[in-house]
Amino acid sequence: MEFSHRSGDYRLAHRQARPEGSSVPIGHGVLIGGPALAICAGPCAVESEEQIEATAASVARSGANILRGGAFKPRTSPYAFQGLGLRGLEALRAAATRHGLAVVTEVLDPRDVDAVVAHADLIQIGARNMQNFALLREVGRTQKPVLLKRGLAATIDEWLAAAEYILVSGNERVVLCERGIRSFDPATRNVLDLAAIPVLAARTHLPVIVDPSHATGVASLVEPMALAAIAAGADGVLVEVHPTPEQAASDGQQSLEFEAFARLVERLGRVATAVGRTLPVKSAAA
Amino acid sequence: MEFSHRSGDYRLAHRQARPEGSSVPIGHGVLIGGPALAICAGPCAVESEEQIEATAASVARSGANILRGGAFKPRTSPYAFQGLGLRGLEALRAAATRHGLAVVTEVLDPRDVDAVVAHADLIQIGARNMQNFALLREVGRTQKPVLLKRGLAATIDEWLAAAEYILVSGNERVVLCERGIRSFDPATRNVLDLAAIPVLAARTHLPVIVDPSHATGVASLVEPMALAAIAAGADGVLVEVHPTPEQAASDGQQSLEFEAFARLVERLGRVATAVGRTLPVKSAAA
Amino acid sequence: MEFSHRSGDYRLAHRQARPEGSSVPIGHGVLIGGPALAICAGPCAVESEEQIEATAASVARSGANILRGGAFKPRTSPYAFQGLGLRGLEALRAAATRHGLAVVTEVLDPRDVDAVVAHADLIQIGARNMQNFALLREVGRTQKPVLLKRGLAATIDEWLAAAEYILVSGNERVVLCERGIRSFDPATRNVLDLAAIPVLAARTHLPVIVDPSHATGVASLVEPMALAAIAAGADGVLVEVHPTPEQAASDGQQSLEFEAFARLVERLGRVATAVGRTLPVKSAAA
Amino acid sequence: MEFSHRSGDYRLAHRQARPEGSSVPIGHGVLIGGPALAICAGPCAVESEEQIEATAASVARSGANILRGGAFKPRTSPYAFQGLGLRGLEALRAAATRHGLAVVTEVLDPRDVDAVVAHADLIQIGARNMQNFALLREVGRTQKPVLLKRGLAATIDEWLAAAEYILVSGNERVVLCERGIRSFDPATRNVLDLAAIPVLAARTHLPVIVDPSHATGVASLVEPMALAAIAAGADGVLVEVHPTPEQAASDGQQSLEFEAFARLVERLGRVATAVGRTLPVKSAAA
Repeated sequence: MEFSHRSGDYRLAHRQARPEGSSVPIGHGVLIGGPALAICAGPCAVESEEQIEATAASVARSGANILRGGAFKPRTSPYAFQGLGLRGLEALRAAATRHGLAVVTEVLDPRDVDAVVAHADLIQIGARNMQNFALLREVGRTQKPVLLKRGLAATIDEWLAAAEYILVSGNERVVLCERGIRSFDPATRNVLDLAAIPVLAARTHLPVIVDPSHATGVASLVEPMALAAIAAGADGVLVEVHPTPEQAASDGQQSLEFEAFARLVERLGRVATAVGRTLPVKSAAA
Repeated sequence: MEFSHRSGDYRLAHRQARPEGSSVPIGHGVLIGGPALAICAGPCAVESEEQIEATAASVARSGANILRGGAFKPRTSPYAFQGLGLRGLEALRAAATRHGLAVVTEVLDPRDVDAVVAHADLIQIGARNMQNFALLREVGRTQKPVLLKRGLAATIDEWLAAAEYILVSGNERVVLCERGIRSFDPATRNVLDLAAIPVLAARTHLPVIVDPSHATGVASLVEPMALAAIAAGADGVLVEVHPTPEQAASDGQQSLEFEAFARLVERLGRVATAVGRTLPVKSAAA
Repeated sequence: MEFSHRSGDYRLAHRQARPEGSSVPIGHGVLIGGPALAICAGPCAVESEEQIEATAASVARSGANILRGGAFKPRTSPYAFQGLGLRGLEALRAAATRHGLAVVTEVLDPRDVDAVVAHADLIQIGARNMQNFALLREVGRTQKPVLLKRGLAATIDEWLAAAEYILVSGNERVVLCERGIRSFDPATRNVLDLAAIPVLAARTHLPVIVDPSHATGVASLVEPMALAAIAAGADGVLVEVHPTPEQAASDGQQSLEFEAFARLVERLGRVATAVGRTLPVKSAAA
Repeated sequence: MEFSHRSGDYRLAHRQARPEGSSVPIGHGVLIGGPALAICAGPCAVESEEQIEATAASVARSGANILRGGAFKPRTSPYAFQGLGLRGLEALRAAATRHGLAVVTEVLDPRDVDAVVAHADLIQIGARNMQNFALLREVGRTQKPVLLKRGLAATIDEWLAAAEYILVSGNERVVLCERGIRSFDPATRNVLDLAAIPVLAARTHLPVIVDPSHATGVASLVEPMALAAIAAGADGVLVEVHPTPEQAASDGQQSLEFEAFARLVERLGRVATAVGRTLPVKSAAA
């Protein structure tokens, strides 16, 4: 089997467009796709200033360089917590800045792109919106780095064609995020497709990080899958961390406590060394 | 196995909210969910006034009561034909009106909802946008009937929770459309999940139609799957028809020629009778 | 998409080997693949002489022409009921003969093939054994008709290559049975892939029947899926029927009561007529 | 989500039966499930004495401790190469013994179990036979260690229930092998489910190894997936190696050349150290 793709579905995203690979600077001294890993950590949703401040302080101390947190939340049910919106964005930005962290957060609506651009360093397009072409074009019109998650049932080629929508709209700063695909075994929420990492390395120049929290849906599986992702060549991880997972407004069962996250980063460091990568340099502010 | 659902994810859409079932009038004398089937037919994309006029004339004569046609097309690749936009909408509306047909067409962007509402009788939310919550809320704010297609990897409960976003926003006129889910066998584009029809009948009061064209991706499979859908209790079908499939700008290999569509409707009539349903009454304009 | 197959994986099973299609006589006046449908009915497992006698009497009266019942049961757990073995086979054969029915039953072990051949008219290879090549070759050495169920994750081409193992061993009497493939939605046990019926009609000359009981796992879904199967062109159905489903040793929740089965056959008759097929002629013994 | 299982489907295999975990000695000084990894390497099929001798010499030198090679081959098509049978077994055994390696090879037919037991140290039950209960019981009656591969569409609980068939038949020496599950993306042959490793660690005491060759079907993906497997906690790997992959009778495109395998072992050693494991001790004979 060769690494081919449906001819013409993606060109700017194709490896041949930049055989040397691309890396994406997102500000605050963070470069995704270089020798140092990107370690994004934080709660599923921003719930309060106290919660995001405590989390930012802890994950910065443990070695994360990017703070994650949802302000606009895509939820299966309209009756589930939908996020704090703009207020959540502001709290996220403030906490990140205090601790020298960059910010990644999701946008759901093309009409919210400007607000998210104003507060974030990396705009997330979630799995459900991977083929929301109106949204892809809208973030493509900005110069803000974009984190494009793989859809639950998207082939790798469809994912790269979705990235192409952003690139062809004028924004070259795209990072991919593998977060599991849908399968039949209820043992895990999704199946984390780590082979996507080397497949992507052959088909595209874009960097790729891995989200073991959404992929597995189970906190105890996050560390082994994060280590495996780095061993397979990922450029970083995106991990859910919460001060008190059992009280989280969403996704508590897959969130790590502070101590478990600190231990994870330490072990990530050892695997990173084994494959020729490094942990992020700790910022002075952390 | 009982017909349960994740408690609270959908309430207005639940069968218990309307045990007698609901039917959705969409104008032009068409009622979806009554004794007569809804037969939607037309090209994947509106390509020209001539193409849509010829198709409307033919499918109306053969017994369709709703004209389908894409003006805003969601395409995997940014380099594929993206539709004629507003000009396509106008041509679609004009052709349908000349032949006494209602119109169904897709909307991709919340900012286009008003334009589509002005021209269509039934607004389609495509499979890729089933969990595009911004778009669901936007069509929920109108009173225009909505056709909500199932996502490629959506469970039936997630699909109904997506419908709930529309209902809870104030729009009760929702029709569901099963169009196949993703699986492993390349023999068909997707796997048409016809058991979804009786499962839905137990879980929701909303009507459901079936799209055998996108489900299979192969023209010769459309007729047997349309007949099976009606035998399983579907309230109608959505079929791609094109004057010259081999020249279609998109999805030609799954489009029926006029004659094949006429034959399909005739056979649908026989199966409909066998299960106590009827074909649509032909409009005078056809 | 053309109807191609991996070149050479199946030849004797390919449509081109018998463009006119093949039909398989299994004795007791039953021909599978002719104008009349094959209607196989009976319990998941033979549990007692009384149970199988009562079921045989009832399903024969309702219009079935083949009695199903498991004597050797493939069970996920070693602690589940494994069937009555030879004693079950004998009871099944006796009840069928009393009521003029043919017998279909499963074989699990190549060393049991002779015993099953001695009692059955149609030997079932179950989904879990679709690629048990030792077993396929063993039934291929007999001249007894074989019912080959599709594996849970088998493509149609792999299924036909498995049939080829039987054909190439010298036994041309093969009937296929679609029984659902594995997918992600817990709403049904499996996803019934009815498009497989017309795909098979293009790729092979072998007849195909459908098992809506194992496919859905829910009794209330069996009738609509059986009707859909016949509308889609299937040559028959295989349905679980039990005198008292709530007391069944296995698969009670997907078994029909006698009355529900009688109603199903009546409705099958109407759909059969609509697509140019007929119910089986009732045997004098029934 | 808790680590539960369908009550009673497996008991002897359950973690609670041996909370400390079990390790399986297979002879030739090899213990699977201890601190040192099991590294199984060799061709898909034994093709000739020269081929297996050259491979055994090379993989032993590179650090493997188990020689793999198929003598009875399960092939999708009856027209594909089916293996050398007993002659292949003898050549495999002789080459392994010359180089101080243990032997793993597959058995397909219950009637071949004695012959395979006589030549192998670890008997493989392949993915297609995971629920071939006659075969499971037959290897369960021996005391020979068994390598049970996961079925293409098997849940983890079904896999453990299959292992239970072996354990309850009297053979406690079972090793599991994750080899990918079926999914929708043709980019890889299967999706390697590495999260199965920590899920298994919570549900069972049995050791688990990973086959990145069958999982991906692409030689260039084998190394990153092998490294990821060890990082995730696997007890070893099973890798296809061939002197001249482009001339292999089967699975050439996923086989490593000797040099690539030597490099893989070296890198495995670094990741093993990072997670507290070691490479096998090289045997004197190598």
